[in-house]
Amino acid sequence: MTPSTFTLATTAEEVAVAAQTAHRAFLEIAAEPPAVRSSRLNVIAAALRAHAPELIALGHADTHLAEARLQGELNRTAFQLDLFANEVLAGIPLDATVDHADPSWGMGPRPDIRRVNIPLGVVGVFGASNFPFAFSVMGGDSAAALAAGCAVLHKIHSGHRKLALRTAEIVAEALGEAGSPDGLFAVVDGRAAAEALVDHPFVKAIGFTGSTAGGRALFNRASARPEPIPFYGELGSINPVFVLPSAWESRSESILSGYAASFTAGMGQFCTKPGVLFVPDSLVGDQIRGVLEPILEQASLAELLTPGLRESFGTARDDVAAMEGVDALVSGSDDQVPAPTVLITDAAAVTRNPEVLRHEMFGPASLVVRYRRAEDLPGLASLMEGQLTASIHADEADDASLLLDTLTGIAGRVLWNGWPTGVTVSYAQQHGGPYPATTSNTTSVGTAAIGRFTRPVAYQDVPDPQLPASLQDANPYRISRRVDGVFEAAEFGTREVIG
Amino acid sequence: MTPSTFTLATTAEEVAVAAQTAHRAFLEIAAEPPAVRSSRLNVIAAALRAHAPELIALGHADTHLAEARLQGELNRTAFQLDLFANEVLAGIPLDATVDHADPSWGMGPRPDIRRVNIPLGVVGVFGASNFPFAFSVMGGDSAAALAAGCAVLHKIHSGHRKLALRTAEIVAEALGEAGSPDGLFAVVDGRAAAEALVDHPFVKAIGFTGSTAGGRALFNRASARPEPIPFYGELGSINPVFVLPSAWESRSESILSGYAASFTAGMGQFCTKPGVLFVPDSLVGDQIRGVLEPILEQASLAELLTPGLRESFGTARDDVAAMEGVDALVSGSDDQVPAPTVLITDAAAVTRNPEVLRHEMFGPASLVVRYRRAEDLPGLASLMEGQLTASIHADEADDASLLLDTLTGIAGRVLWNGWPTGVTVSYAQQHGGPYPATTSNTTSVGTAAIGRFTRPVAYQDVPDPQLPASLQDANPYRISRRVDGVFEAAEFGTREVIG
Repeated sequence: MTPSTFTLATTAEEVAVAAQTAHRAFLEIAAEPPAVRSSRLNVIAAALRAHAPELIALGHADTHLAEARLQGELNRTAFQLDLFANEVLAGIPLDATVDHADPSWGMGPRPDIRRVNIPLGVVGVFGASNFPFAFSVMGGDSAAALAAGCAVLHKIHSGHRKLALRTAEIVAEALGEAGSPDGLFAVVDGRAAAEALVDHPFVKAIGFTGSTAGGRALFNRASARPEPIPFYGELGSINPVFVLPSAWESRSESILSGYAASFTAGMGQFCTKPGVLFVPDSLVGDQIRGVLEPILEQASLAELLTPGLRESFGTARDDVAAMEGVDALVSGSDDQVPAPTVLITDAAAVTRNPEVLRHEMFGPASLVVRYRRAEDLPGLASLMEGQLTASIHADEADDASLLLDTLTGIAGRVLWNGWPTGVTVSYAQQHGGPYPATTSNTTSVGTAAIGRFTRPVAYQDVPDPQLPASLQDANPYRISRRVDGVFEAAEFGTREVIG
Repeated sequence: MTPSTFTLATTAEEVAVAAQTAHRAFLEIAAEPPAVRSSRLNVIAAALRAHAPELIALGHADTHLAEARLQGELNRTAFQLDLFANEVLAGIPLDATVDHADPSWGMGPRPDIRRVNIPLGVVGVFGASNFPFAFSVMGGDSAAALAAGCAVLHKIHSGHRKLALRTAEIVAEALGEAGSPDGLFAVVDGRAAAEALVDHPFVKAIGFTGSTAGGRALFNRASARPEPIPFYGELGSINPVFVLPSAWESRSESILSGYAASFTAGMGQFCTKPGVLFVPDSLVGDQIRGVLEPILEQASLAELLTPGLRESFGTARDDVAAMEGVDALVSGSDDQVPAPTVLITDAAAVTRNPEVLRHEMFGPASLVVRYRRAEDLPGLASLMEGQLTASIHADEADDASLLLDTLTGIAGRVLWNGWPTGVTVSYAQQHGGPYPATTSNTTSVGTAAIGRFTRPVAYQDVPDPQLPASLQDANPYRISRRVDGVFEAAEFGTREVIG
C-alpha cells in the first residue's frame, strides 16, 4: 500500500497487490549503479531529518517515550541510512569476487568465475513496538533491505500507527522525488496482513523484532512455505551481567547505579535490558536494596508502550516473583506508570530451577542473583539460553577468562565493564545471538545486516560486456572486490559519513 | 563414533555419545591459532592422497564409477582441503572487524567494538550418493565445517559404506597423529542416526546433499527443533540450457554433442546435469535424433549408483515421458545398465503444463524443448523453479540480455557457452540457488562455504589481552581484517595452493 491508498487492517488481497507492485519496482531498479542506490538512502535520511519535529511529536503521543530519546533515535536512524549508503557506494554488500580463468589451477583448469550478491526481491519487515524509528518503518531492517536493492513491505506496529503512517508518507514522497519506482516501499497493517506477508510467493525474506511466541509462530510459518524463506527474527533476551568479586568489592555502589540506570532506561523496554545481575554474596539483600532504592526513586517514569505490553510485563514479573527462592527486593507497583521492581534470589535456587533465568520481563524489572564462588559463574552462565548480550564487570584482580569463553558461547555481544543498552551502528556491530535471542546467525544492526537480504550468483565464462558492471574487468564503479584471491579496496571505501 | 568403535545402524543413544565427544573436542580446539587449524586440513589432504589407490578401488567397487573419475574426484577433494587451509591461515572466514572507540561517530560516541566469526559447534554432514569423495565423508561440507573450527559427525551414505568407513579411518588416524582431540570427526550410520543427528541439541547445523523429498523432511525437522538450526540442503535441480537461434544455426551439432556428453557424464548422476535443453524449432525431432543417437551409442555406460536410485530414475523418467505432449526421441533401456534417454516436447506443451519442467530425472535422461520465438525464452525460463545452474548458448548475433537477467533471478550459477557439469572450487564459486535447488542463500562449494558454519560475536570494550588474538590490536596472526572501515590484507593471503 502506498500511503495515499493505505487502508487499516490491510486484507490478504491488498497485500498481494502491494507485493506485485513491490516486485515490479524491485525488478526496475535491479541494474542501477551503486551511486543511485546509495543516494536513495541519503534522500530518505534527509527527509527524516527535515521532518524531525513533526515525527518526534507524533512518536511521543503514540509511545509515551521522551522527546529527547526520540530525537536521539531519529538521529541514529538517519545516520544508519547514511552509513549504509556509503557501504553501498563502496560495493561492500556486493562481495564482488572475480576468479579469472586459470589453466594451472590445482584441481584442474579453472573457468572464469565471478560472483556477486544480488537482492532477494521483496522483503517483509515487521515494526517493533519499542523503537518507533530505529526498528520500525525506516529502521534497521528496512534500511538494510533497501541497501541490498530489495523492495520493502513494512507491517506497521499498532503501538505507533500514526507515527508509522506519517513516516511512510514522508519516505514515499522522498522516494518519489528521487525518481524511485512506485511501490518500492509500502506499508501494510494488521494481523491478516502479517500472515499474508509471510506467505506471499514474491516475499523472499522477513525481518522481525518482537516477542518469542509471536516470532516463533511466524518463523514456523516462513519455514513451512512451499518455498521456505529466511526469517530474521529477534525474539527474546535476558542479557545477564556478571559482577566479579574484586570489582564488587571495590565499586558495588557505582555498579548498582549503572545497573539501575540501564534496566530502567526506556522503562526497561529494550531488547538489551539487563534482566539478571549476578553479584557476590558479600552484601546481603538489605545492603543492595539500600543502594538501589534511592536511585530507583529518582528514575524518570512513563507509561509503557501499549496496554498489551503493560499486561504481559506484569504477568512475567509476577511469574518470576512467584518462583521458589525468589523474593522481592525493591517492590514496584501496578500503577498506570509502573515503578521499577527488583527481585532477588541466589545461585542455589537458579541451579535447582533454571527457568528463573529464562523469563524475559519486558519492562522496568530485573533479578539479582547472589553467588558464593566466582568459579561457579561459568556453570551459572551455562544455565541460560541464547542471548543478544552478556556482560562482565571485573577488575584486574578478577580472573574472568573462563567466564568470557562461556559467554562467547551463549551471546552475540560480550561487554566489559559496560551496560548492554545502547547499540552502536558500525562495521563491527553484532546484534543477534543463539536462539531464542534470534532465529539466525546474523545481525540486525550494523553494516553486516545488509547481506541478509542478498544471495550470491556466479557467472561462468560470461563475456565481459554481458556481465553486471560490478564484475566487469574495468570495475567501472570502482567498488571493493576480491580478484584472484586478493582484496582490492574501493575508491570510496573510506568516505566520511555525514550525520 | 570413531571408526574403531563404529557400529552399523548407529542408535540414537550412540549418536548422543558421539555428539558429546564431538562437542568436547570442539571446545578443546576453540582457541587454537589459524596455523594449527589450517595444518589439520593439510594433514587430511595428504592422508587422502597417500591412500588414493586403496580408496579409489573401494570407491569403484561400491559405486561402479570409473577409476579415472574417482581419481579426479579425490584430487579435487584434497585440493579443496588445501585451498580451505590457505583461507584459514589468512583468516578470511573469521571476517575479523575492528572498530576502535570513536567519540565523534555520527550517531554519538562509539565504544570499541570488535567482531569475529566463531564456529557453531558440532555440525552434522550427510554424505551424498553421487560424489563418494567430494560430497561425502571428507567432502565439501566436512572440509568447510572443520575449516570453520567445528566438529563433524558424518552420516555415511549407504551407497558407498565400505569406502566411507575406510575414509573415516584414514581421516581419524591422520587427525590423531596431528594431535587433534578424539571425536573431532566421526561417522554414524542409518536412518535412526540421521534423525538423531538433526535432533541433538549439541548439533548446531546440518550440511545435506540429496533428494528434494528427503531433504525437505530433514529441513522441516531442523526448523521444528526447540532451538531451530540452519539446514544447508542441496535438494534438486533441472539445470536448463537455452540455445539461441544464431548459435543453433551455426553449430547445432557441436552443441548437441556437448549436451550428450554433459547429461550422460557419470551416468547423469550429477546435481548439475542438464535436464532440459531449449532449442529453436528450425530442426525437427528426426534431425536432432540423427545427431544425438550415434553420439549416445558411444557413451560409456555403467550401473547406477544404487538399486534405489535406479528405481527412482526409471520412475521419474517414465513419469515425464507420460506427460501430455512429451515424446521419446532417443529411447533408453531398463537394463541393469540403462542406456540414455532423450525426450522431446515443445514450448506450447510446457507452457500448458510447467510440471514437465519440474521433475528431476536423476540418471541418463534429458528433455529437449523446441521453441518458436527467442523472445519467449525469458517467459519459459520463468516457468522453472529455483536452479543450481542455468546456461545460455549464444553467438554475437543473439540478443540474450533479458534471458540472462531472468536466469540470474532463478539460478545460483549462470554459464555462457558451457555445460553445467563440473564445478570448480574457487573463491568466486557459488553452488546453490533458490529453492528447491537449495534451502538457503549460500554455497556448498568454494571458499565461501566455510562461513555457513560460523556465527559472529562482537566484543565491546574488552581489554586487549582478554580479546581473541584475531581481534587484538597487534594482530599476532597477521590475518586479513577490516579496521575502522578499511580492509587490511593478510600477510599470507596470496600463498600458493598446493595440489
